[in-house]
Amino acid sequence: MMDVGVYRLPMAGPDDVSELEALIDRGEIDPKDICAIIAQTEGDGYARGYSALAFQLMLSEKLGITREEVWDRIPMLMIGLTGGLMSPHYTVFTRREVDGPAPGEKRLAIGIKDTRVLLPEEYGTMAQVREVARAVKEAMEDAGITSVEDVHCVEVKCPGLTAKRIADAESRGKRVVSNNLAEANSKAKGASALGVALALGEVKEEDLSDAAICNDWGLYSNVASTSAGTEQVACRIVLLGNSDKSVSKYKIGSGVMKDTLDITGAKAAFKSVGIDVGDTICDEDRKRIAAVFINAGADATGYIRGRRTTMKSDFLSGYAGIFAKAVINAIVGALIGDTMILASAGYEHQGPLGANLVAAIAKVE
Amino acid sequence: MMDVGVYRLPMAGPDDVSELEALIDRGEIDPKDICAIIAQTEGDGYARGYSALAFQLMLSEKLGITREEVWDRIPMLMIGLTGGLMSPHYTVFTRREVDGPAPGEKRLAIGIKDTRVLLPEEYGTMAQVREVARAVKEAMEDAGITSVEDVHCVEVKCPGLTAKRIADAESRGKRVVSNNLAEANSKAKGASALGVALALGEVKEEDLSDAAICNDWGLYSNVASTSAGTEQVACRIVLLGNSDKSVSKYKIGSGVMKDTLDITGAKAAFKSVGIDVGDTICDEDRKRIAAVFINAGADATGYIRGRRTTMKSDFLSGYAGIFAKAVINAIVGALIGDTMILASAGYEHQGPLGANLVAAIAKVE
Amino acid sequence: MMDVGVYRLPMAGPDDVSELEALIDRGEIDPKDICAIIAQTEGDGYARGYSALAFQLMLSEKLGITREEVWDRIPMLMIGLTGGLMSPHYTVFTRREVDGPAPGEKRLAIGIKDTRVLLPEEYGTMAQVREVARAVKEAMEDAGITSVEDVHCVEVKCPGLTAKRIADAESRGKRVVSNNLAEANSKAKGASALGVALALGEVKEEDLSDAAICNDWGLYSNVASTSAGTEQVACRIVLLGNSDKSVSKYKIGSGVMKDTLDITGAKAAFKSVGIDVGDTICDEDRKRIAAVFINAGADATGYIRGRRTTMKSDFLSGYAGIFAKAVINAIVGALIGDTMILASAGYEHQGPLGANLVAAIAKVE
Amino acid sequence: MMDVGVYRLPMAGPDDVSELEALIDRGEIDPKDICAIIAQTEGDGYARGYSALAFQLMLSEKLGITREEVWDRIPMLMIGLTGGLMSPHYTVFTRREVDGPAPGEKRLAIGIKDTRVLLPEEYGTMAQVREVARAVKEAMEDAGITSVEDVHCVEVKCPGLTAKRIADAESRGKRVVSNNLAEANSKAKGASALGVALALGEVKEEDLSDAAICNDWGLYSNVASTSAGTEQVACRIVLLGNSDKSVSKYKIGSGVMKDTLDITGAKAAFKSVGIDVGDTICDEDRKRIAAVFINAGADATGYIRGRRTTMKSDFLSGYAGIFAKAVINAIVGALIGDTMILASAGYEHQGPLGANLVAAIAKVE
Repeated sequence: MMDVGVYRLPMAGPDDVSELEALIDRGEIDPKDICAIIAQTEGDGYARGYSALAFQLMLSEKLGITREEVWDRIPMLMIGLTGGLMSPHYTVFTRREVDGPAPGEKRLAIGIKDTRVLLPEEYGTMAQVREVARAVKEAMEDAGITSVEDVHCVEVKCPGLTAKRIADAESRGKRVVSNNLAEANSKAKGASALGVALALGEVKEEDLSDAAICNDWGLYSNVASTSAGTEQVACRIVLLGNSDKSVSKYKIGSGVMKDTLDITGAKAAFKSVGIDVGDTICDEDRKRIAAVFINAGADATGYIRGRRTTMKSDFLSGYAGIFAKAVINAIVGALIGDTMILASAGYEHQGPLGANLVAAIAKVE
Repeated sequence: MMDVGVYRLPMAGPDDVSELEALIDRGEIDPKDICAIIAQTEGDGYARGYSALAFQLMLSEKLGITREEVWDRIPMLMIGLTGGLMSPHYTVFTRREVDGPAPGEKRLAIGIKDTRVLLPEEYGTMAQVREVARAVKEAMEDAGITSVEDVHCVEVKCPGLTAKRIADAESRGKRVVSNNLAEANSKAKGASALGVALALGEVKEEDLSDAAICNDWGLYSNVASTSAGTEQVACRIVLLGNSDKSVSKYKIGSGVMKDTLDITGAKAAFKSVGIDVGDTICDEDRKRIAAVFINAGADATGYIRGRRTTMKSDFLSGYAGIFAKAVINAIVGALIGDTMILASAGYEHQGPLGANLVAAIAKVE
Repeated sequence: MMDVGVYRLPMAGPDDVSELEALIDRGEIDPKDICAIIAQTEGDGYARGYSALAFQLMLSEKLGITREEVWDRIPMLMIGLTGGLMSPHYTVFTRREVDGPAPGEKRLAIGIKDTRVLLPEEYGTMAQVREVARAVKEAMEDAGITSVEDVHCVEVKCPGLTAKRIADAESRGKRVVSNNLAEANSKAKGASALGVALALGEVKEEDLSDAAICNDWGLYSNVASTSAGTEQVACRIVLLGNSDKSVSKYKIGSGVMKDTLDITGAKAAFKSVGIDVGDTICDEDRKRIAAVFINAGADATGYIRGRRTTMKSDFLSGYAGIFAKAVINAIVGALIGDTMILASAGYEHQGPLGANLVAAIAKVE
Repeated sequence: MMDVGVYRLPMAGPDDVSELEALIDRGEIDPKDICAIIAQTEGDGYARGYSALAFQLMLSEKLGITREEVWDRIPMLMIGLTGGLMSPHYTVFTRREVDGPAPGEKRLAIGIKDTRVLLPEEYGTMAQVREVARAVKEAMEDAGITSVEDVHCVEVKCPGLTAKRIADAESRGKRVVSNNLAEANSKAKGASALGVALALGEVKEEDLSDAAICNDWGLYSNVASTSAGTEQVACRIVLLGNSDKSVSKYKIGSGVMKDTLDITGAKAAFKSVGIDVGDTICDEDRKRIAAVFINAGADATGYIRGRRTTMKSDFLSGYAGIFAKAVINAIVGALIGDTMILASAGYEHQGPLGANLVAAIAKVE
């Protein structure tokens, strides 16, 4: 049987890994059990790398391996740029094999998988869709999950395009999907999300094509959250769901907010793990919440329920993604009385346009 | 008897006054009845002046008076800087004397009053507190309100300090409260809020002093929202409450969110006008909501319920007020399913530190 | 003979037109002579409209005509967004017919011309190129300029695309150059610049095509500065050069800075009007400078002479145009000891990529 | 005799230390000789720590010592936040003892010194002034400089105040200069600059007092550049000048630009190291320039030579320091044809208000 631990810890700055270090030093976490870290880092884009470096340094000392070995072993998803009431923090997942009886209900399971190294010309294409789909299926297997309904959150970090990678493709007579890096990365994220959707049966393979990527918004996954990073060469998959092979004290659920004001959708996510957020949440239930991951979509348009916003037009419109995350963090945070919840921004086939995907992990009662 | 009308209208840009113009042209609003305009304008600080100029121009044509006469006659409170899901709009209040029987319950009433012209050295002092207190009492009388419990929202626009006004004070051998304009204006807003608190019996006169302004945060009003503008020479008061002299189709209520996540406080505001926002609001109730005015306080600190935020420390911290407004707009907007609600930022004695004040105007059932 | 006056006046804010008003009131400017206003306005994009409205209001009073008539009569080019040492100001051009002998050398002349109303589907196409080219030739004629070498600055304000205009084109079965407004406007500015280049013989008609617009950067004008505004329906041309039909006290010259550090190019512009900016400029020469208009290009790339900049990559990269203007303003301002010089940003066929175009107007010795 | 090397190297990102690593790996730099690193880092404030960590990591490997030992041994001054044409880079100083004849003229020398650990209540007070003054004198001695005229640049990194440090002071019954961190740090930087001025005889001790710090702007150093960092507990001094004990291939000079447009002052700095920047600089001279350090002052006011700027008032005014650095970088960069020059912002007693201090290091002809 698999036991999965969840530790949500605050950061005092992008390089602050002291809370995890303390848990390791006190023997509460065995660093060999750490299988993934998902962080909400403050600061600008560079702070993500800073944070990752701080984790690698500390863990290389604790594990007695090199920083590169830490990097290969533990996927670290750093979600940068905070605003509003967002609170910098990270969630550490541990996993280990244990003996013992199945708890009688499905519990939190985690699967980790990398695709093969992708070529720059494959980014944002059906080749990426298929590789991600295959890796997601393998990650399900790794997690001991047999039914797609039990998958509630798939985080994908895929390689980002760079000038160097364009040159590499061209040197081999190949073309990348776009020389515009922003557009190319958008398609790479979209292809990753469609890969998740394909693996989980949310879309049919015959509806997919290179042309459909970042074009046919009717195709999407309701549990994918994808981002691109130039430090990656392959897609790294962290898949979360419930499995009858797990004895974890936690379980996970999810819900779709069809737009940013759809609190009914958010409440459904919590309901699915036994937490009632009707009028107000009770203290006991709030304490059971171990982690919340939201994929925000408010920056997909400049409208919300027929009202015009200034998200895409005002002098801060370059930071629309930060505002999208800040408002969904505030709304869901207000429902559960805690804003230490993770929000990432990304609209490419991650739910219908303008939707927000909510995954909630809670301690079993 | 007094009849008070409420018209909440969208803007396509800071200078877009076309919706009001259309209502006037169609005869639905008699421009002579317009007694106040409160707007949530997009753009930067200058857009407030742009918007005010656009209203003055249009109304001077409709009323056949000069722009200066429009300015003297109709208080226009322009709340600038939007973010997130905030939707630029304005609320027009009309008022006229009518015959007819009292409706049997108190209804929406509005009172307008200016203080005398204040001297620059009086800004941010007890002199301002007392003048505002007097004007608030007169505005209550103007509104036909006899009990302070019936006052739910007092908007105050007070004069802002300028280099020229400092020089004027000094030429008369006087000193202003601070040569730092930001600090001086903060005190002016604080003095205005304490003036409201004094008039409404929320603080005792003996607890007030120059030293207490922007210092003793235990003193505050739960219904004041104040801002400063260099175009003002006196304080303009727009007071909203319920009166048995009103036959308006609307009534107003208010509530205090003790912090930004306190949705119970927000719900109380709506409850007080007969709107139940328990689990979810029903369509009928949503349609009854005519206007919502919130004074936001999330930027008072870098913490929320023990969680650290990056509001005061990150690279966008210069825009903390915008984020404070965006998050409260999102939270209350999600509760009622509509983000065309007004949010202003201001912590100086406007509720306890970090609180949000919510006033809701609804059509009577 | 034509007499052309040049008045460079400071602004205390976007709506401050008091300096011009004072000159009119003192009889130094006859408002009927005003033929164009070019302003460097502070604030965000909306401040441009605010400023234009303030000019229209004041001039409608002085001229006894409606605001719409002012708008039709006097082209107002509002260049928004300032940074660094840029100083908000505007330049008023006056023009009137006078008798009297030619001064023996060519002097400052100004020509004003609008194209016909353009259809949305024509924006950014050869149709626009040709209409602008025709209007530029007419503006030359209007200015009494017969040789293209005598044209030193052509400011073009062309119509910007809007959602409404796209819909209009589609309702007639037509397609606009791009549904992406930023891309469409970039092409509209490029087409305008190529129109200038065509009229002045800087490019050959056979090298031009729809495909070349914003694509073949080897084609450009060295005297064009173009911008797009949604308030326009036709292209407005303000052309400045020297003519033997002018008795103005001013003349104009221009130069190309091949990159932002090319101060030799800037000095050539001043040299061409008899001002020596070698090691340092002398006070007398500085005082002769009446106006400087620069089209900035530093934001075309993230490099300068082999050095990497963070113009396109850092957390303020959304404001790259402001930084491009701020640095060229600082460099040329330092050369002449005055930063009240106008900088606009625009790389589309306005000089070679990364170049800065400098036009200088000086009083004749 | 002392030999001092200067290596100015580009960075591809805050963590890019590859150019230095390559020089070490190729044997061109012996890491044991590295005595100081001064970097211009891109990104936000956190990127400074990221960059420092990257240097410490690499150098701990090359030197075979711990990261803490690197930190103690090599002062690293990270100047963060770039804009305009500023190009991220770092300058590495090496120093070693060599035999050999004196070159017959004074050459570049470097002195490094830390003050004792300062108590939080000493920050921004005369205690700090005196400790810095003492350390500057010791750094002069360390550099083999006997005359204050030979000192051209003193970089000081002093401890910044934190909430924790305020609490520490209070726990001992002491008060810090201000509980407002920004104000306290401003005074700490001012005290550091006055410490330099005192050591170099630029101010008299009897004119100094706690009250004069950040108040009497007539007191200043023309060669000090100071910054505060919460990672410091003592003040670190890097002093650069010319010494007859040095056989370096470089020498250093300096100049004061009395305001940001004073290019004569900038040229004087280059002239003092034998580089003529009259009309234009020649290629040979440009290549001799090894490093330029500027302390920018344009953000001290909202005016430049009687012209109003929007530096302190516009919607980007929170980034005034970045604009101040961008414009001085552009102006001096244009003079020498290279913008890979370091600009820091700081007005507190670092030259007269609004001045810019320029230090230039050049290879001896």
